[in-house]
Amino acid sequence: MTGRKKNMEKNTKKNKKIEKISIIGVGLIGGSLGLALKKVNPKCEITGIGRHLPKLRKAKKIGAIDKYTIDFKKGVSDADLVILAVPVSLIFGLVKKLIPHFKNGCIIFDVGSVKKIIVEKVENMFSSLTEKSLFFVGVHPMAGSEKTGVENARKDLFYDAACIITPAAATDKNALQIVKNIWNDLGSRVLLMSPREHDFIVGFTSHLPHIIANCLVKEVGALEKKDKRIKKILAGSFRDMTRIADSDAQIWTDICINNQIAVVDSLKIFQIYINEMIKKISEGKRELISKEFMKAKKIREKLTGNLHF
Amino acid sequence: MTGRKKNMEKNTKKNKKIEKISIIGVGLIGGSLGLALKKVNPKCEITGIGRHLPKLRKAKKIGAIDKYTIDFKKGVSDADLVILAVPVSLIFGLVKKLIPHFKNGCIIFDVGSVKKIIVEKVENMFSSLTEKSLFFVGVHPMAGSEKTGVENARKDLFYDAACIITPAAATDKNALQIVKNIWNDLGSRVLLMSPREHDFIVGFTSHLPHIIANCLVKEVGALEKKDKRIKKILAGSFRDMTRIADSDAQIWTDICINNQIAVVDSLKIFQIYINEMIKKISEGKRELISKEFMKAKKIREKLTGNLHF
Repeated sequence: MTGRKKNMEKNTKKNKKIEKISIIGVGLIGGSLGLALKKVNPKCEITGIGRHLPKLRKAKKIGAIDKYTIDFKKGVSDADLVILAVPVSLIFGLVKKLIPHFKNGCIIFDVGSVKKIIVEKVENMFSSLTEKSLFFVGVHPMAGSEKTGVENARKDLFYDAACIITPAAATDKNALQIVKNIWNDLGSRVLLMSPREHDFIVGFTSHLPHIIANCLVKEVGALEKKDKRIKKILAGSFRDMTRIADSDAQIWTDICINNQIAVVDSLKIFQIYINEMIKKISEGKRELISKEFMKAKKIREKLTGNLHF
Repeated sequence: MTGRKKNMEKNTKKNKKIEKISIIGVGLIGGSLGLALKKVNPKCEITGIGRHLPKLRKAKKIGAIDKYTIDFKKGVSDADLVILAVPVSLIFGLVKKLIPHFKNGCIIFDVGSVKKIIVEKVENMFSSLTEKSLFFVGVHPMAGSEKTGVENARKDLFYDAACIITPAAATDKNALQIVKNIWNDLGSRVLLMSPREHDFIVGFTSHLPHIIANCLVKEVGALEKKDKRIKKILAGSFRDMTRIADSDAQIWTDICINNQIAVVDSLKIFQIYINEMIKKISEGKRELISKEFMKAKKIREKLTGNLHF
């Protein structure tokens, strides 16, 4: 952690020119970002932008933002950095609408769980601008919770969490460096990959588990309709495996729509694995079944060995 | 909880005649049972039986048993109650081998995760005995952990956990009552159901999640072989959903072999749910996808609302 701490100090100096930050959307992620940014740079001025005054007031009360507005155009007009902490489906439309109002030279990053579709569309739009320069960087912090809302925001939400930044062909090198520095400052483990690579990988590691949890809940729920005792015997395995089925429906619909190919691929491959198990269990060959359980145990150890699991 | 506590006190008096208990298999479950039984009835004498002296010594050291032996026949010979805390595949063979050595009137219960095959076979065998009376009761405490071994044993493992007891046609009423009392004493939430019902229900609520976790780990593991960065971005959802893939391979092989029909059925139905999601995501209809996520959220709330989740 020492290396990361050193980096965080060094970078804070470089980021001095980012003084005014606007965060659009002050939910769990936007609110936690406000708290974390304030912690590493108490001098920055953060404006919260949103449609719901009560939410914005709450965000100010907990110290995630310094001031707020429901006027999106005014809210971004003097920001050096605009953070888009809104559902994936809203990002492109929002950026498009706000182009005339962003300050020249403004850096914008989103925190959506899908990257290719957003990065491509925004970069295309920005590259054709002639009246000013705007810089977009795609970011996906791999932190979150089934809990939503600014009331669950935490200043350490991103600390030691992976944060994927997805530069594309047209991404400005300087803007990329500044955004990288910010996330290093927050103590995240920054990884760079292309938007396409990102979508493919998280389709398997994050989106697939969500849909599996969704299906498991529905299957057990259908059974519970016929036998109420089921509620009484649900054990830890069910609780742990379905916790993420409690996530925000809107966000996950967006993800499925915008990362369709990777999500469908991962599900189809998953069906192959389930088929294999059905076949082996139906045949009842002890050694073959046992091998599958041992294999998974070994892989899990390998995958999670380095982490704080 | 007060009602349960009152019951526990009342029952302890009734169970007085159970003085000598033998536990075959002193792993997580057997060891925890020893600790818990000692706590509610410090006067009972518990003999640990197993094949591995170091394990038995460890169980004695932590106070889960009073004495131990590797001689199974001697170990059960004067027991009022014999608890079979061994893998499902060993239970029937063990009971058969020990019939000549159980004391007349001995009550025997197992703690296996599969019930129909065991209860039927053992009760068939016991009902044809003429030289003595032996009483078998099928039990499945819904507690456990991906951690195994007596070193992880806890005296409160069964407290407030569901415990399914599975009487069948030939189950002795008195023996059933005594076994029920014991589990009430331990503070478990006792449920009665037929062995067949048990196997069907836990096939869906417990065995299905295990195989799903197994397949998820293998799918992500295969991807990690091609892209090592995957290890760095695995988040909480993956960790929570795959924790149970770390369970004992032998036990889960036994379960698949002995609850084949329910497990295969639950997997086939699960595939239908996954296929539905593939179809809906492929079609990209926002409202239909959103409905699925909202539905699961609602069902999970209903299923887990009463529990200490």
